[in-house]
Amino acid sequence: MMRTRPLKVALLGCGVVGSEVARIMTTHADDLAARIGAPVELAGVAVRRPDKVREGIPAELITTDATALVKRGDIDVVVEVIGGVEPARTLITTAFEHGASVVSANKALLAQDGTSLYASADQHGQDLYYEAAVAGAIPLIRPLRESLAGDKINRVMGIVNGTTNFILDRMDTNGAGYSEALDEATALGYAEADPTADVEGFDAAAKAAILAGIAFHTRVRLDDVYREGMTEVTAADFASAKRMGCTIKLLAICERSADGESVTARVHPAMIPLSHPLASVREAYNAVFVEAEAAGRLMFYGPGAGGSPTASAVLGDLVAVCRNKLNEATGPGESAYTQLPVSPMGDVVTRYHISLDVADKPGVLAQVATVFAEHGVSIDTVRQQGKDGEASLVVVTHRAPDAALSGTVEALRKLDTVRGVASIMRVEGE
Amino acid sequence: MMRTRPLKVALLGCGVVGSEVARIMTTHADDLAARIGAPVELAGVAVRRPDKVREGIPAELITTDATALVKRGDIDVVVEVIGGVEPARTLITTAFEHGASVVSANKALLAQDGTSLYASADQHGQDLYYEAAVAGAIPLIRPLRESLAGDKINRVMGIVNGTTNFILDRMDTNGAGYSEALDEATALGYAEADPTADVEGFDAAAKAAILAGIAFHTRVRLDDVYREGMTEVTAADFASAKRMGCTIKLLAICERSADGESVTARVHPAMIPLSHPLASVREAYNAVFVEAEAAGRLMFYGPGAGGSPTASAVLGDLVAVCRNKLNEATGPGESAYTQLPVSPMGDVVTRYHISLDVADKPGVLAQVATVFAEHGVSIDTVRQQGKDGEASLVVVTHRAPDAALSGTVEALRKLDTVRGVASIMRVEGE
Ligand SMILES: NC(=O)c1ccc[n+]([C@@H]2O[C@H](COP(=O)([O-])OP(=O)(O)OC[C@H]3O[C@@H](n4cnc5c(N)ncnc54)[C@H](OP(=O)(O)O)[C@@H]3O)[C@@H](O)[C@H]2O)c1
Ligand SMILES: NC(=O)c1ccc[n+]([C@@H]2O[C@H](COP(=O)([O-])OP(=O)(O)OC[C@H]3O[C@@H](n4cnc5c(N)ncnc54)[C@H](OP(=O)(O)O)[C@@H]3O)[C@@H](O)[C@H]2O)c1
Repeated sequence: MMRTRPLKVALLGCGVVGSEVARIMTTHADDLAARIGAPVELAGVAVRRPDKVREGIPAELITTDATALVKRGDIDVVVEVIGGVEPARTLITTAFEHGASVVSANKALLAQDGTSLYASADQHGQDLYYEAAVAGAIPLIRPLRESLAGDKINRVMGIVNGTTNFILDRMDTNGAGYSEALDEATALGYAEADPTADVEGFDAAAKAAILAGIAFHTRVRLDDVYREGMTEVTAADFASAKRMGCTIKLLAICERSADGESVTARVHPAMIPLSHPLASVREAYNAVFVEAEAAGRLMFYGPGAGGSPTASAVLGDLVAVCRNKLNEATGPGESAYTQLPVSPMGDVVTRYHISLDVADKPGVLAQVATVFAEHGVSIDTVRQQGKDGEASLVVVTHRAPDAALSGTVEALRKLDTVRGVASIMRVEGE
Repeated sequence: MMRTRPLKVALLGCGVVGSEVARIMTTHADDLAARIGAPVELAGVAVRRPDKVREGIPAELITTDATALVKRGDIDVVVEVIGGVEPARTLITTAFEHGASVVSANKALLAQDGTSLYASADQHGQDLYYEAAVAGAIPLIRPLRESLAGDKINRVMGIVNGTTNFILDRMDTNGAGYSEALDEATALGYAEADPTADVEGFDAAAKAAILAGIAFHTRVRLDDVYREGMTEVTAADFASAKRMGCTIKLLAICERSADGESVTARVHPAMIPLSHPLASVREAYNAVFVEAEAAGRLMFYGPGAGGSPTASAVLGDLVAVCRNKLNEATGPGESAYTQLPVSPMGDVVTRYHISLDVADKPGVLAQVATVFAEHGVSIDTVRQQGKDGEASLVVVTHRAPDAALSGTVEALRKLDTVRGVASIMRVEGE
């Protein structure tokens, strides 16, 4: 059964993820060969700094010329773990042109150029797999694409960024402020020196674009994803959330509209009830909740990042792609067979938790309630707290279009009796 | 791209699961065609009672001659949702012989005859898929077989039977006794008239055999699985569990030994800490925890049964198998490339929670502690409660081989001062 010519793998990048991929390919070579049906051989490793010591990797495999490596012609599979858009994009399309399939962990590139990369793979009869690009080790892309291929997915809602979940978890458990929690995340290696991509939600937005595209069989561009970061979340927000039996998570939410004719994708902090399975996702773990018509509510949970978990996902793809090579077949390609419009955030139906500083005098509540009514937003609960002529009013709304909710907030800001809007946060998961 | 000749599907069985499969095939025909790349057509439906009204299924498709249906020669895929060993086994092998791939939800058959069915599929170049056989709608078989194909799985621990989880959840939340909770489960349709297969752990044991085989790439027979039901679990056990910060779940646990040279598979009730993700799996939901070397700790959660969730899993497989047919390829077959011995329960390393009724007199604890020491079992905690000359002693051990633990219990029973062993339960998930 076992064929003797090994499949040749070119590894582009040998950093946090790449070095683990190389290590497992070496230490578990026999298992991989048994699962694939042929041995796999590391044929070359492209890096930026050739002189860096790379344990377990024969020096003669190292090259700084990634382009030459993917053009060699004898490479069966290219594993791209460099990251970023260029040169990764050009290297991947060059790989397809030279008869190699590609496994990538590159969410930024996939979110931006997934469609053209798929087209290139398809044109050259090659595979493009990228399980590691969303939620690290958690099998998610394959279940969505394959296990749920006979079902209709209506909603994907998840914690897809470990850094921000770690920070929010610390704020929740220790009552820490944002910057204190960020410092801890940085010290422990959970946050990068420049945490912008994580805390401003760019990383999660890229993943939301990829997930929405797969879940709804349509194309969702990165620009289509509404994005709010979590740098403004305060200890006071957590205190409010607790009073409501909630916690706060940075969520990526992809939804099909009620009529099925459009979709939305968004990333923002939100209050979710403590009883929701996502509420108990601690530290840097990720978890994704999927609602499908027939399957019901599913959840996938696990480590969302880290060299070895991400390498696990890369290697799962490597096995699949190598098996396809041996069978002279390819796996399922892009399945964006519908082109559903992506609605703007204003059309998303959600709920707001609004905290107002108001004058402590009679009639304020009536005034505030009138503004909600004028915008067609119905109020679920109101809590008033007065102290020394100042008072706070916490309003939780029923579900309404985001445009109506944000319009309400704008109008509230203009009321004389409203001294300020202390916080606004969406409420999800009910 | 879309070929015009439809793929023909024979449906064997049209009960709880089969009727949903037929319904979704009809209502979502366009989506399925787009995802597969060709239309799929229901070519025949085999049942026992031909005269029963089956909504949405043309009468001319119904037959009681399942054998003739699978022998027709024009069938591409057979979906077996009859259940039980015969005639399902013979129908499946006949399908392979006549050039059809098979999708099945039949855990009983797969656990008993998986190896010979795989061999038959392989011999005839056909696929055998069975995502629905374990944990219903939860994508689990595919992630284990494919997503984690590049990793090494060390442990699979899960709640894989919804009926028993519903009963245990009620006992936990309402303080109900076993038979009261069982009555409620029966009334709500969660338990069958004869609940033996569920409450005695036979159903979970079949799933454990399937999971262990896939996770460890070895063959695990149903007889290899140690099995204890949950009919003896009492309200007092739940009270004890609560005092320890635990709850009680019926778990299926498959483990690789520390040296990697053997595996174990078992089903029994166990106490698990409330902080463990499996502890918060309520009602009839299922969840499976997987520990892999590189990926770390993953969890998969969702509805474990029910017509429509199970049909979702069947249809995901149907799409994959149809795609393979179009590509003239087959998916990954059995990958039992190792033959690891399955160790007996006595070799499993676990912890016991033991509740003893003892005489309330000095020296009893010393006597009891001596018995543990003689068996090489070290004690973690002891709690003594005395009342009117009677006393109870609750001992929680450290980890030790199950044989040493059960030997300890046998010896304790023989002590004059031990009036009875009120309960013994294993403790997992720490
Ligand atoms: N780290 C995670 O936890 C994680 C999780 C999920 C997905 N990912 C994705 O995985 C990918 C890799 O991430 P990482 O954390 O492993 O990054 P990393 O540690 O920064 O490693 C990047 C690697 O690429 C090499 N490289 C950079 N530019 C190159 C070029 N022009 N030609 C050849 N090699 C080049 C670097 O070489 P030198 O070694 O010489 O610097 C380094 O080996 C990214 O797409 C990331 O989004 C990472
Ligand atoms: N129900 C669930 O939630 C669930 C979940 C996971 C897996 N499964 C598995 O799915 C399979 C089907 O379960 P189910 O609940 O759908 O069972 P079910 O409701 O009892 O349906 C069985 C079907 O098979 C037909 N049948 C029985 N013997 C037959 C024979 N000799 N020839 C032709 N047809 C025959 C029956 O015909 P009549 O309609 O004429 O009686 C009926 O349509 C089982 O393997 C089960 O373990 C079920």
